[in-house]
Amino acid sequence: MGNTFGHLFRITTFGESHGGGVGVVIDGCPPRLEISESDIQYDLDRRRPGQSKITTPRHESDTCEIISGVFEGKTLGTPIAILVRNKDQRSQDYDEMSVKLRPSHADATYEAKYGIRNWQGGGRSSARETIGRVAAGAIAKKILKQVANVEIIGYVKRIKDLEGMVDPSTVTLENVESNIVRCPDPEMAEKMIDLIDQTRRNKDSIGGVVECVARNIPKGLGQPVFDKLEADLAKGVMSLPASKGFEIGSGFAGTLLTGSEHNDEFYLDETGEIRTTTNRSGGIQGGISNGENIIIRVAFKPTATIGKEQKTVTNTGEETTLAAKGRHDPCVLPRAVPMVEAMVALVLCDHLLRQEGQCGLF
Amino acid sequence: MGNTFGHLFRITTFGESHGGGVGVVIDGCPPRLEISESDIQYDLDRRRPGQSKITTPRHESDTCEIISGVFEGKTLGTPIAILVRNKDQRSQDYDEMSVKLRPSHADATYEAKYGIRNWQGGGRSSARETIGRVAAGAIAKKILKQVANVEIIGYVKRIKDLEGMVDPSTVTLENVESNIVRCPDPEMAEKMIDLIDQTRRNKDSIGGVVECVARNIPKGLGQPVFDKLEADLAKGVMSLPASKGFEIGSGFAGTLLTGSEHNDEFYLDETGEIRTTTNRSGGIQGGISNGENIIIRVAFKPTATIGKEQKTVTNTGEETTLAAKGRHDPCVLPRAVPMVEAMVALVLCDHLLRQEGQCGLF
Amino acid sequence: MGNTFGHLFRITTFGESHGGGVGVVIDGCPPRLEISESDIQYDLDRRRPGQSKITTPRHESDTCEIISGVFEGKTLGTPIAILVRNKDQRSQDYDEMSVKLRPSHADATYEAKYGIRNWQGGGRSSARETIGRVAAGAIAKKILKQVANVEIIGYVKRIKDLEGMVDPSTVTLENVESNIVRCPDPEMAEKMIDLIDQTRRNKDSIGGVVECVARNIPKGLGQPVFDKLEADLAKGVMSLPASKGFEIGSGFAGTLLTGSEHNDEFYLDETGEIRTTTNRSGGIQGGISNGENIIIRVAFKPTATIGKEQKTVTNTGEETTLAAKGRHDPCVLPRAVPMVEAMVALVLCDHLLRQEGQCGLF
Amino acid sequence: MGNTFGHLFRITTFGESHGGGVGVVIDGCPPRLEISESDIQYDLDRRRPGQSKITTPRHESDTCEIISGVFEGKTLGTPIAILVRNKDQRSQDYDEMSVKLRPSHADATYEAKYGIRNWQGGGRSSARETIGRVAAGAIAKKILKQVANVEIIGYVKRIKDLEGMVDPSTVTLENVESNIVRCPDPEMAEKMIDLIDQTRRNKDSIGGVVECVARNIPKGLGQPVFDKLEADLAKGVMSLPASKGFEIGSGFAGTLLTGSEHNDEFYLDETGEIRTTTNRSGGIQGGISNGENIIIRVAFKPTATIGKEQKTVTNTGEETTLAAKGRHDPCVLPRAVPMVEAMVALVLCDHLLRQEGQCGLF
Repeated sequence: MGNTFGHLFRITTFGESHGGGVGVVIDGCPPRLEISESDIQYDLDRRRPGQSKITTPRHESDTCEIISGVFEGKTLGTPIAILVRNKDQRSQDYDEMSVKLRPSHADATYEAKYGIRNWQGGGRSSARETIGRVAAGAIAKKILKQVANVEIIGYVKRIKDLEGMVDPSTVTLENVESNIVRCPDPEMAEKMIDLIDQTRRNKDSIGGVVECVARNIPKGLGQPVFDKLEADLAKGVMSLPASKGFEIGSGFAGTLLTGSEHNDEFYLDETGEIRTTTNRSGGIQGGISNGENIIIRVAFKPTATIGKEQKTVTNTGEETTLAAKGRHDPCVLPRAVPMVEAMVALVLCDHLLRQEGQCGLF
Repeated sequence: MGNTFGHLFRITTFGESHGGGVGVVIDGCPPRLEISESDIQYDLDRRRPGQSKITTPRHESDTCEIISGVFEGKTLGTPIAILVRNKDQRSQDYDEMSVKLRPSHADATYEAKYGIRNWQGGGRSSARETIGRVAAGAIAKKILKQVANVEIIGYVKRIKDLEGMVDPSTVTLENVESNIVRCPDPEMAEKMIDLIDQTRRNKDSIGGVVECVARNIPKGLGQPVFDKLEADLAKGVMSLPASKGFEIGSGFAGTLLTGSEHNDEFYLDETGEIRTTTNRSGGIQGGISNGENIIIRVAFKPTATIGKEQKTVTNTGEETTLAAKGRHDPCVLPRAVPMVEAMVALVLCDHLLRQEGQCGLF
Repeated sequence: MGNTFGHLFRITTFGESHGGGVGVVIDGCPPRLEISESDIQYDLDRRRPGQSKITTPRHESDTCEIISGVFEGKTLGTPIAILVRNKDQRSQDYDEMSVKLRPSHADATYEAKYGIRNWQGGGRSSARETIGRVAAGAIAKKILKQVANVEIIGYVKRIKDLEGMVDPSTVTLENVESNIVRCPDPEMAEKMIDLIDQTRRNKDSIGGVVECVARNIPKGLGQPVFDKLEADLAKGVMSLPASKGFEIGSGFAGTLLTGSEHNDEFYLDETGEIRTTTNRSGGIQGGISNGENIIIRVAFKPTATIGKEQKTVTNTGEETTLAAKGRHDPCVLPRAVPMVEAMVALVLCDHLLRQEGQCGLF
Repeated sequence: MGNTFGHLFRITTFGESHGGGVGVVIDGCPPRLEISESDIQYDLDRRRPGQSKITTPRHESDTCEIISGVFEGKTLGTPIAILVRNKDQRSQDYDEMSVKLRPSHADATYEAKYGIRNWQGGGRSSARETIGRVAAGAIAKKILKQVANVEIIGYVKRIKDLEGMVDPSTVTLENVESNIVRCPDPEMAEKMIDLIDQTRRNKDSIGGVVECVARNIPKGLGQPVFDKLEADLAKGVMSLPASKGFEIGSGFAGTLLTGSEHNDEFYLDETGEIRTTTNRSGGIQGGISNGENIIIRVAFKPTATIGKEQKTVTNTGEETTLAAKGRHDPCVLPRAVPMVEAMVALVLCDHLLRQEGQCGLF
């Protein structure tokens, strides 16, 4: 009952890491948008495991098929179903996990809630579920770009204690994609890659922070009081696997300032538009976009599945230890970048459609 | 369109800071729960302005009336409408604000979105809107308490850089209410009160962090993949006025650990129950409660409306300055405590009802 | 959990027939619409009991108060809460009903479902609940009128076996309001009034059919495949008390024709617009409005509460008889007219807002 | 945005008649239900074109694949995605329809709304879309059967003016399936088959009425005031292609009775259960099931696409004529039976889950 996200641009994802496949149904995509599998595949490839030496070595091509909703290259206004078949299924690596619960993973809670789980890999709790989100996010990005020239750029801001210097108002996709860790600070990126690589060899994992900026945002997006733009953004990214924190604008650090220091003073730009001299608000005031850049940060914990031995229990109630066999992802951050971008795009696209027509009638 | 929160325990709030009143309609409250105005009034009084020298001096009694849904002291299973009339309306203080936009307030974005706003006070963006949430939250707390003995306790964890030491597993409501700043660390509370008082005299404002713990949580609450418990908690508290950040469990600090340091190892307690030795997960794994304490933190920025002079513009497009007259709240944190508790209670109660009956059929 | 209707123009009603009052919260009303209590009161008066000799003699003024969402005569885009206080409470008439279940009324099912009910009158199942719908419907009508000149006119088509002759393409509100039974066929109206009056004297009740036409409908309203316009209309009117059937266009009678007889052939009118020569479709094809008049019919059963003695049981499990004391409504049809209009207006207004902006982007 | 149905048992269908395929995602199916493709295939075969001489000759095997949500033969509690590939694509038959709008079909309204349509067959408005509903309905039926022994049996009640005699309290699936028209009155079934066959030879089409009974219904299903059981049933079946009317219990005919004739008097059965002597209410009072059989009727118009020549226009604005080539369905009623059953099952299953846990807490 919790597999749908959005109101007017509404996605429903399905699929476990093992089984027939994973995918998404997008309901509410406006008609006559040009779209093809290749529009989607780019972000799927950025999300894909095995894309570099610092991600999980699980090799999946993650090729998507558009099942419905597109005719002669254009959207019909009907639901767009996208399917990615599962392929690389070495389930023998998971045999141990059919009884042993991985610490800080969803094994135990799924078992407690549902009384059943697909123990081959993470099942529904696998990051593989995000394929549907990323596919839908690619379409949302395209809509936002065409309608309002909105640009959404995510990047790795911090890996463990290694923090990059990035200017959110100028960073480009090319900067982000210039290295495999997706940190647009080239020097720090090198260090991050080394740290991840070393962590992988230690059979351990690390986390960090993804920052995401959305530029050229129309004023007026967001629906107070519960569907405030930052509230929906928070929900979106906090529903990603491994996320533990969310900030907008000044975030937690902003609590160290006084009001007179923190407030974004207004001025009129050369076109007479109301702007703010600073952007501690992160582009949103009172739950509604003010036209400045939207800037959020998401904390991702270190991946739960590790090769190191840990204490745990079995689902039949015995204490034991577990050292995960085979593949595991030392750091999800580089792959989390397109996931965060997708959630931001989905929220913004939904609110763009909600804004349209609602406030311009009288 | 964004004024409803929750799926099975669903609230809709209404009302501006000025006008007939504010309130809430609660749909989905189970029948036969004993409820009266006094159950609700306690938390409304904790949220009320003018309750102490460190909050806004706006004096409002905020007396609630249950309009519907209760018969002979018990809920009917029908919608519970609760109304609080507006009283203290010194709108002449707001005359200046009918043209001048308060920096970092919602004035400009409401104007941009709706082309109209109730400039008497914050209108819909006023913290006064949270009366409906707190009233509904009081009922949600009562349900959670009766059904599963759930305890929800919020408190001020930090004011600016003054951080209290609090043990979330033992803190009580009495501890919290023992001082006017609602920080259960008595020594630090004194310092916080002094700092707020001094800030008030400076015509400035400060922010901080509210922490909230929910104890005795049944296992299995939460609906992957989008309605994960932490995602709904994040949305709930990030929809509160002035919130800028959300964390669960280890939060942003958890990104500094490795997986082997961060993972919560499992063990079996004396009753054979699966427990975790640590709780960096904050009581939720894979979006589903694991029975450990749920612990979240919310960052609140310093209040936007201050007495100090600031640069701003008018809604007719002229640059000017503004120093807010009369009352203003130097620090929202003490009053934010019941607001955070309410949102946590609303989310947990909704998921409690969603869990019931859905997973126990076969 | 079922007290909300609509997606973008979304109403939540509350209140029992006895207690503090009844009302509605409207979320999604566009800003800057001029609105006042008098806009709403007209339809409330048409719905009001005691308005004529052929309705229930229960005397209630049903005066509405707009609590929120309107500022200086215009909507703010925030929730509009409307409250009507309960007044005429002769609950001693209901004492018997605290134990005896009225046949074909909701007493027994509410008791079975909730284990509690407000036995003073119908409680939540009372037609009094429709006050909130009619109030919201009045606003929806005003929006539709201003945006697209849509006219919604309901009328009594049939009372028992007395059927009026009415041309839906020309009937006016004045025609409808020219007699107390709201049948725009004056001769048949006389007969209907006589029949209702005689039924009232017999301590019995009768039902009939309300027809409703909506004219000047924009093409393109409706959201396949589940939120087809006729599906939402059906749900709307079938949620009214005492409704037992719904038809659109040719309805049940249309099943007696062949396809070649039933199909509405297309032609081009003088402006080049695609029109249909007949309108057996009732203005909707494939769930989407085609610009022709939308015509629906709703069957209302005879009122359940009657003065005649009937066999029944008590809620403590004894067989008994019941002859309802005091007031009862011999025929709900005249008062059902504004209820049906309201539901039609609510559905159309919701779909108008859903249509805006969704299909015009590319 | 209108492709999702249900709240707790929630389905989203996708797919056009031509393209990759059609299907459904079911969210909210309880875990640990045994389910396989064969459970679903039975009803898909009853819905399938080409199943007999009186349906459309379009030959499609409509073989379903469960993509997700099932593991080792049991549901996981995660979304169940079901896909049926499109096969029989003789799109040259549709070439003419790329420009000519079929009278009383959805061609013109889709074109008006979306500015684009898949003119190969009905696209999204095709009855082929109902595959997803029927597949989900099969699972809903299984849940209802296992949890409460609910039986849902639909049948053809009337074809044009040929009406069968059927006792809804005793009719069986075997009775229904004993002939190709699915009317459990064998003599009338013969006449119906002859009439349909003759109509097919005339290149014309006919409609009729499907009746559906649901037996062994738990008391208490339904959520007043908008999500009344009959309101959701009405919405469900009125969203089926070609439906023009809905009745519950006494329906339109009930309006010819007086209240004293129409009311269902209560009595206590041998077990002390409150029952009604008659069932003009159709199993629902005040929007809530009373435990008696739920009986509804749905009017289906004659199929719009016919071989006879009709006047129409092109989408480029010229008047013309159209005689549909090749295949067409002379009467949708036999295939509509599983569709109606599916919608009834989906509504009941959704309300069963909504009822669980909501009213039994205190």
